[in-house]
Amino acid sequence: MKTRQLNELAQQLRVDSVRAAAAAGSGHPTSSMSAADLMAVLLANHLRYDFERPQHHGNDRFILSKGHASPLLYSAYKAAGAISEPELLTFRKRGSRLEGHPTPRRLPWVETATGSLGQGLPVAVGVALAGKRLDHTGYRVWVLCGDSELAEGSVWEAAEHAGFEHLDNLVAILDVNRLGQRGPTRHGHDLDAYARRFRAFGWHTVEVDGHDVDAIDRAYGEAGSTAGQPTAIIARTLKGKGVASAQDREGLHGKPLPDPEEAVAELGGVHERHVEVQQPPAARTVHAAHSAHLDLPRYDTGDEVATRDAYGQALAALGTARGDVVVLDGEVSDSTRAEFFAKEHPDRFFECYIAEQQLVATSVGMASRGWVPYASTFAAFLTRAHDFVRMAAVSGSGINLVGSHAGVAIGQDGPSQMGLEDLAMFRALYGTTVLYPCDANQTAKLVATMADLEGIRYLRTSRGDSPVIYSPTEEFPVGGSKVLRASGQDRLTLVAAGVTVHEALAAAEALDREGIQVRVVDLYSVKPVDRRTLRDAAEQTGCLVTVEDHREEGGIGDAVLDAFLDGRPVPRLVRLAVRTMPGSASPGEQLHAAGIDAEAIAAAARLLVETAVVR
Amino acid sequence: MKTRQLNELAQQLRVDSVRAAAAAGSGHPTSSMSAADLMAVLLANHLRYDFERPQHHGNDRFILSKGHASPLLYSAYKAAGAISEPELLTFRKRGSRLEGHPTPRRLPWVETATGSLGQGLPVAVGVALAGKRLDHTGYRVWVLCGDSELAEGSVWEAAEHAGFEHLDNLVAILDVNRLGQRGPTRHGHDLDAYARRFRAFGWHTVEVDGHDVDAIDRAYGEAGSTAGQPTAIIARTLKGKGVASAQDREGLHGKPLPDPEEAVAELGGVHERHVEVQQPPAARTVHAAHSAHLDLPRYDTGDEVATRDAYGQALAALGTARGDVVVLDGEVSDSTRAEFFAKEHPDRFFECYIAEQQLVATSVGMASRGWVPYASTFAAFLTRAHDFVRMAAVSGSGINLVGSHAGVAIGQDGPSQMGLEDLAMFRALYGTTVLYPCDANQTAKLVATMADLEGIRYLRTSRGDSPVIYSPTEEFPVGGSKVLRASGQDRLTLVAAGVTVHEALAAAEALDREGIQVRVVDLYSVKPVDRRTLRDAAEQTGCLVTVEDHREEGGIGDAVLDAFLDGRPVPRLVRLAVRTMPGSASPGEQLHAAGIDAEAIAAAARLLVETAVVR
Repeated sequence: MKTRQLNELAQQLRVDSVRAAAAAGSGHPTSSMSAADLMAVLLANHLRYDFERPQHHGNDRFILSKGHASPLLYSAYKAAGAISEPELLTFRKRGSRLEGHPTPRRLPWVETATGSLGQGLPVAVGVALAGKRLDHTGYRVWVLCGDSELAEGSVWEAAEHAGFEHLDNLVAILDVNRLGQRGPTRHGHDLDAYARRFRAFGWHTVEVDGHDVDAIDRAYGEAGSTAGQPTAIIARTLKGKGVASAQDREGLHGKPLPDPEEAVAELGGVHERHVEVQQPPAARTVHAAHSAHLDLPRYDTGDEVATRDAYGQALAALGTARGDVVVLDGEVSDSTRAEFFAKEHPDRFFECYIAEQQLVATSVGMASRGWVPYASTFAAFLTRAHDFVRMAAVSGSGINLVGSHAGVAIGQDGPSQMGLEDLAMFRALYGTTVLYPCDANQTAKLVATMADLEGIRYLRTSRGDSPVIYSPTEEFPVGGSKVLRASGQDRLTLVAAGVTVHEALAAAEALDREGIQVRVVDLYSVKPVDRRTLRDAAEQTGCLVTVEDHREEGGIGDAVLDAFLDGRPVPRLVRLAVRTMPGSASPGEQLHAAGIDAEAIAAAARLLVETAVVR
Repeated sequence: MKTRQLNELAQQLRVDSVRAAAAAGSGHPTSSMSAADLMAVLLANHLRYDFERPQHHGNDRFILSKGHASPLLYSAYKAAGAISEPELLTFRKRGSRLEGHPTPRRLPWVETATGSLGQGLPVAVGVALAGKRLDHTGYRVWVLCGDSELAEGSVWEAAEHAGFEHLDNLVAILDVNRLGQRGPTRHGHDLDAYARRFRAFGWHTVEVDGHDVDAIDRAYGEAGSTAGQPTAIIARTLKGKGVASAQDREGLHGKPLPDPEEAVAELGGVHERHVEVQQPPAARTVHAAHSAHLDLPRYDTGDEVATRDAYGQALAALGTARGDVVVLDGEVSDSTRAEFFAKEHPDRFFECYIAEQQLVATSVGMASRGWVPYASTFAAFLTRAHDFVRMAAVSGSGINLVGSHAGVAIGQDGPSQMGLEDLAMFRALYGTTVLYPCDANQTAKLVATMADLEGIRYLRTSRGDSPVIYSPTEEFPVGGSKVLRASGQDRLTLVAAGVTVHEALAAAEALDREGIQVRVVDLYSVKPVDRRTLRDAAEQTGCLVTVEDHREEGGIGDAVLDAFLDGRPVPRLVRLAVRTMPGSASPGEQLHAAGIDAEAIAAAARLLVETAVVR
């Protein structure tokens, strides 16, 4: 397309953005209008994309990091013929695919859910990295960012990562419209402030008038011919561009224009221009999901093995069996044991350094391209990426996250390194699976199982060695549990997972010597939880004691209650968990101080049995 | 101190670091040894600090961002006479103040807990900002960072914030020892790579040999005489410096040296050098905790007011009454209504832009200087700062965090903007208070109450208007609840908070018309929870139905269970919560679709009453 057509297309995108927001009675037309020229030129002259085959491996990828500018995105879809005029006007209405912020759960052309700012570029880095190092299909990744969101540190984690990895297939388009939600941004129209920052992180930068379609066209061309570096196109724009009463004005963020009809007239009226988007080149599927027999490590019962070791060894084996498994590290692969995978499959191992948001974003980006990522760091540090995991859930992304060094059982390092809230965080997110193995064989099986689940899968591993209690042939279905000890005389049930399974077993033995029989359940599947076994235990033993190396809120105790919150009778319950702020001490001292060791469990059980008047 | 003495002091710090880790059998001596010269020169010649009066307003502030180098910090404390030789050797032992990573809960000279990397600089920015804009006492803030942690985006949020605010009282000392935990960092000894990045964000930079005490001394002097910009001193160092078998070697992170005695000999042996740390200048307390009568806004019952509006108005009133209240915004003050405070008290309002980690870190830094911060953004976006809040809890920091736009009730904007996991996140953290008001008068009272609580206080507000149901004179103690409806014939209890209180009341009225009496409890204090009222309700009505605009895990349903997890009989329970992934729709449609509106509550109640064979 040439200048005049591009300008017309841009005006149409503005008009349709104004109309969509007007029809919805809410939305962000002014944030759409600033970027309309940038989008028009991209769509008409540079994007290679087959809207009928969104999963085509040769497709370029476009990510709207400033997700609130969804009217612009949907207007572009309409111009490309992907959606109809009537559908455009369903924007933000119940049941519409055109949500306030775009999500891939609803729309096949959306790569990742955006709307929490500063996440589009990090995910785009993951997609671009997949393009360079895994897919080898030559696609380009375009990401449209707002200027306000450049205050997010995650943007600079991404900038650093992209620069270091020489991602010349990545183009960040910065819509510098000077105005954030509540007022001016830090740097206003100082394009060079942004350019200096991106250049410092190793990017090529182009400053451009974001309303000059020819200049934009040249800038995109320059990005395409830049080798060895990602490119940031830094565009000076005006929020609300094209409508005098809105243009460059404060106080109009996130609102329909006051007079949409007049605005549409001022923008040249409604048109139905269609864009023929360039088709992608032919491309092949590069990875085979299953390439070999899975030969998981096997551990002898009675041996002492840390579940983090089993994770690393199982992961390496899984990588041998499956060509689609990729592993990402937050600069702790020696601790999480992801290094075992790195040694055997260096081509599919990605070092993300100490940048947990980028760690998760890279996973989301790679998963969007069909890879099966396992990202691991300390459980405690996954909290750094909470918002990214939250948005991954909105995306419906299929990623595996593994948190090591769970609980007070890590010992001397103290509370900053202890994952004590991770179960609560992952349980509360939509569509997650939460697994917490207690031995090496169980860990190995779960590592393999989680690869094929839907949504976000979380596995919690432990630092210290623990006895292998299961045979390598045992199966561990998601949603199941294991009754490790049971008799007809059980007077209560101990429910544990991970490190506390071994404490519960020791407590049960001590109680047995006193003539008190108790059941022990290994709740390795924390979400979904094995309701049937828990209900049976409740009926048969009357009372449950949960014990966990986690804060009392949101962990195993609460997971157990999921079995009883439908109005049926609820058993008596006691919850043992970490209630204080730990300091430094040995692992055994920590478990004791927290009141979750065998001694504390046995004491709680005795007290309950003594006071159990009702059965 | 002159060259020879500084070198001797640095060697002593190395020796003591080696000894402390050897005595502990764990810890990070090599990470301490790289920064020993940097620390020695700071302690001897530049820091102004009275170890006997850590709260002195004139004291410089030192933050060890690379918290794992705690042996170096404790060795410095010993050299300054703050701790004894025997105490140094208690490092990492149970009961010792000298934890694996330093915490202010234990040691009065520690400003903030570190150990989760990339947090020291952000908190230091908060302290420095307090110094410049609130305290006006001229102290300098020194922060020692590792090079690995510069991969964290939070570091660049902080760099941006400090540069923009011209914090020339802030000095970041970068210990560029080239080696992370599992291997080399991205940039190795390329000091200029770091310098370019900091300069791009508006910092003055000095590159220096980190083992040349005279050069370090000059660099600190240059930082002190730099006006209008923060300074980054970028020091080339060697990990394990001074012990040939450890120096600049991989694989020695986080481990005692293999032969500590030989290492001590190589470093010149054990010495007991004492440093006279410069005393701070005289300084006055600048803020008065209470300066005026608190005149909270008062709302008429029956009026429709959003709790976010009440938050903003109460905050403005609180700011008038108290000179120590400061407010921080994540570039959404028009939405959270923190703008009401900004208009009345611009000197105590801090714009943190879209950088939630820095928002919380600034709060922690200001709280460490005695200010009472309220930081607000969308509840959903506080997840971005989860790890910072977690570390604030380790610090024992007293901060107020306020999350607006809670739940599906926000309507059209969709899931990216909905706080649906915030209660779970805040409940699981140590020592938190979680409040969720349902009307404007309740909000105003709670905003004032939370100022004086210990630890982290979280308040959840709603976007939409809701009826005022309480009188302005009603009191809302933390840990309490309100029984809004009760009779002797109640057949179950509805427990709600925030927006669902109004739905529960409507459901109760509908049920009443059908002859079914139900109790309604407003659980505005989600943590701590009102166990007594809940137990009474359970005893008297037999069954509880919880209803919340939040995910089913970790929120109000689980909070209610806190009242029953001590082995006493548990009532039958039904939990209504958000179980699906919402799209865009109106607020009413959203509540209906999630099954948490009056209709759904009434339906659940009917079902329960019908099946309630046992009372």
